[in-house]
Parts: sequence; structure tokens; C-alpha cells
Amino acid sequence: MTAQIIDGKKLAESIKEEIKNAIAERERQMLPIPGLATVLVGNNPASKTYVANKIKTSDALGIRSFSYELDENVSLEELESLIKELNDNPDVQGVLVQLPLPEHLSEDKVMHNISPKKDVDGLHPYNAGLLSRKYSEPLFYPCTPSGIIRMIQSVCPDISGMNAAVIGRSSIVGMPTAMMLSRCNATPTICHSYTKHLDEICRQSDIIVAAAGTPKLIQGDWVKPGAIVIDVGINHIPDSTKPRGYRIVGDVDFDEAVKRAGAISPVPGGVGPMTIAMLMSNTLKAIEYRES
Amino acid sequence: MTAQIIDGKKLAESIKEEIKNAIAERERQMLPIPGLATVLVGNNPASKTYVANKIKTSDALGIRSFSYELDENVSLEELESLIKELNDNPDVQGVLVQLPLPEHLSEDKVMHNISPKKDVDGLHPYNAGLLSRKYSEPLFYPCTPSGIIRMIQSVCPDISGMNAAVIGRSSIVGMPTAMMLSRCNATPTICHSYTKHLDEICRQSDIIVAAAGTPKLIQGDWVKPGAIVIDVGINHIPDSTKPRGYRIVGDVDFDEAVKRAGAISPVPGGVGPMTIAMLMSNTLKAIEYRES
Repeated sequence: MTAQIIDGKKLAESIKEEIKNAIAERERQMLPIPGLATVLVGNNPASKTYVANKIKTSDALGIRSFSYELDENVSLEELESLIKELNDNPDVQGVLVQLPLPEHLSEDKVMHNISPKKDVDGLHPYNAGLLSRKYSEPLFYPCTPSGIIRMIQSVCPDISGMNAAVIGRSSIVGMPTAMMLSRCNATPTICHSYTKHLDEICRQSDIIVAAAGTPKLIQGDWVKPGAIVIDVGINHIPDSTKPRGYRIVGDVDFDEAVKRAGAISPVPGGVGPMTIAMLMSNTLKAIEYRES
Repeated sequence: MTAQIIDGKKLAESIKEEIKNAIAERERQMLPIPGLATVLVGNNPASKTYVANKIKTSDALGIRSFSYELDENVSLEELESLIKELNDNPDVQGVLVQLPLPEHLSEDKVMHNISPKKDVDGLHPYNAGLLSRKYSEPLFYPCTPSGIIRMIQSVCPDISGMNAAVIGRSSIVGMPTAMMLSRCNATPTICHSYTKHLDEICRQSDIIVAAAGTPKLIQGDWVKPGAIVIDVGINHIPDSTKPRGYRIVGDVDFDEAVKRAGAISPVPGGVGPMTIAMLMSNTLKAIEYRES
């Protein structure tokens, strides 16, 4: 028996379709349409690709995009001044500063400057804090964790009481995913490089979210039969048969895990497209805060 | 063999002694001394006791206390206006609104009003968000979780790689304790009322933090031999042999758990005194933000 494949690309398409329709409806009603500002600093090729994808997707859905490319050596003051301008711009509902930033810019300081009401990435400490409080709602849920939860719920709407191993404790993926799983009444274990017996923890988990950035870290026989496996890893592996000289793999040994899991997400075509879809969803949601 | 007792009262005394000396030294140097404002709404007897203890401890350490008692029916606007006044008062470094609040007052809305720089309880969403981000530091760590970590580290300074069951996911204790355990490189599992096989999770844990509010929830044979057990529960059990007609017990079956644990905190005399000591520590720390 092989696992059901959680097709992130297809799921993302249906979410984007809904957003597109909602925006078209706003246009018909002569309501303002949402705008997303992207800020790219420097020349990191992966960042360039991510930002280009976000702009392309915005355009396709009818979201206005405002694109800013800053020099690698831009000062903190200049970047902060641009963010302030975007916070004040009523046509911009979402402000996204592509990470990572060059070393001389403190990501923490930069993120603090984004208005929590325009924090469509959901990474501002204020929104992260609301996320961690059981009885409060953040203005925005962070994009990748939101996509992960949607993917899990697409195969199992009620995960209450399930054990979940979250591997990786980043502030962008691991930690907020653990908090969102707890909000769904699952029982998350936050694993990381110091965790002992990771194999045992995985074997006892009904859900595995792998966000460690290590190819094939999660071996096939670590997967509990029937478990839901979400692979967040994006690792470049040298591969001379590919035109670019590499291929992209996740953190899970997919070929083996697929034989044991109940449902599993592939890489690529899993979490990646969902992250962008959730960003668009947050941008649409942001216009509500403008109107409220 | 019985466990080492983690004497929270004694540990708290030594922390308070340090704070007292630091404040006396500030006085000698003619530096401003920290001030703590407590705001009590209504007539909850437990809240009255807690606030009275905080004021008494402040006085004993040389911290100036500013005490406000508001009527049960105070409006949100009146309470917010008092908080604003305290935020602006340069003699007040810490603002503490005793929880729980009467039902007509949203705790979330009230807590948002406290300046993060005076949030000595460490419960403002901004500080909670910074706590959840691996590479950032909150201005204040929340008091009870800080006390718990200090107690654990008093018997085991390096907990990296240890499995930790946190039972309870409140925004005051469980959730921030899990995040602080992760910061210490332990592997926390966030358990709650929907968690299945809580006994199994406990048996695999090197550290148990019980903050569920259920007497004797954690049975003796759930404790892994040698584990560190911190009991955060404060439960009132009818007891006709006591003058007040009740006695206070924790969430752990102490008499049985003490036979298996390596170290265990009692109730009372465990986490309770540590929470107040950490509040005083935060209040002293707050004066640094005033000066910076």
C-alpha cells in the first residue's frame, strides 16, 4: 500500500482560485483591491526567485504588486524609511521583506518596523505573541505553518488528540507550526538538532512535520504506519543528469516513507506552493483591517 | 531512594537576597530605585492574597510599591486610563494587572495596554512573540516559567537533549515554559486535555512540568526513574483537619512520585515563591530599560 499524496500544488491552485474570485468580486463592487509590497535586498538568487514568484502570483490573482529592489549595501535607516512609507501607503495592505537579509541588517529590527496590520508574513513579534496565546487570534497566521495545517486538514480535518513531531524550531516554520498544531488540539513535540532518539519520537507520531533542512533526515522506517507526513525541506542535491546540475529534495526519504505513511507531501510541489497561496490569502485578509 | 526536594522557597530567598543587595547598592549610589505598580480589580480573595504578597515582598526588598484597588465594576476605559498613567509615570518600572479580571474586561485588551518595557509579568503579546523567536530576546521572560527553569537548572544546569513533558498549554505557564525549555535545547512535548497516552509521554520524559490544575493527575508510576518533576498545580482539597477546611496540593501525586523522581518540587513551597522572586527580578531589570 502506498500513501495518499498531498498535492500542495493542486490545493494551492484551489485556494488561489477562491482569492481570484473574491478580488474580481471586489472589483465588480468597486471596492479597493489589495496591494502587496515586496522588498528585496541584494542579489541572493533564491530570494530573487521567491520574490518573482510572489509578484507573478499577485498579478495572476488581481492583487496589485509594489516591487522594491534595494542595493546589497542599503543602510538600516534607508530600509526602515521605505517600510515606514509602505506602512503609511493606503494602497499597500501587505508589506513583505524577503528574508534572509544581508548580515549588516538585523532581521529582528527590520521586522519590528512592519505594521502588525500589514504583516502578511505573520512574522512580527506582536502577531507571533498572539499566536502563542491560546485565547487570542493573531492578525495574520504565518504563511508556511498555515499551509502545513491546511495540507494536514485536507486529509484529516480533525487532528485533535494526535501526536505530532515537529522537526525544526525556527521562528518561521517549526515553532509557529507547533503552536498551530496545539491550537488544533494535537500534541506537538518540538524537535531540533539536540533532540535525542528522534527516530523514536517520529515512530510514535501520527503527524510528522519535517523542517530541518537536512536531506533524507527522516528515514522510511521512522514513519508510523498510516501517519501524515509533511515535508517542508528544500535541499539542493548535486545531480549531473539535471540541466541545472542539481535536484531539489525534502527532509524525508520519500521513496521509503511513501510505503508506510497514510498521506505524504512531495518536494517539490508540496509546501512551497501552499506558502505563496497563504501569503495571497493573508493579503486579501489584510484589506479587512484597512476597512475596519 | 527518594528524590532530592527542589526547595522553591529557599531558592527564592537567595534570589530575593541578591535583588535586595542590588537595590541597597543603588540607594547608596543615589540611583533611582525600581517601582512596581499592582492593579487589583474586584474582590477575588486569591487575587487579594497574591497582590498582598507581591506588595509585601516589594517592601521587603526595597522596591517601591504603588498599589491600586479598583471596583469590580470598573469600566475598560477607566482601567486603560490608569494603565496609561502608570506607563507614563517615571517612578513606576513595572505594571502588573492581577489576573483573572472580571468577565466584562477582556484580559487580552487590558494586557495590550501595558507598555512592553514595563511588562514585568512578561505576558504582553510583543514579549511573548519575542520569546517564541529563537534568535531574539524578550524584554521580560514570564515569571512562572522563569522560576520553573531556574528550579530545573538548580539540580541540572545543562538540560540540552532532555525530553520534557509540559502538561498544560496556558499562555501564562505551559506555552512559554515549552518555549523556554526549547531555548535550553530540551525537547518539549506540549500536552493538554486532548492529549492521548499522557502516561506514556510522561514515562519517556526526563523532565515533567505539571501545570494542568488537576490534583494527582500525574501518578507516581508515570515518573521515569531519576526524572526532574516540577509541580505548578495549586489545587484546594477539602480537609476538615485544617483550620481553613482545605489543604493545597499540586498536580502530582507527590508521595508516590518522590520515590521515583531524581528531583521534585513540593506544593506549597515550590513554584509559588519562585514566581514572586522572578517578578521582583523583572522589576529590577525594568529599571535598565528606563535608563537605556
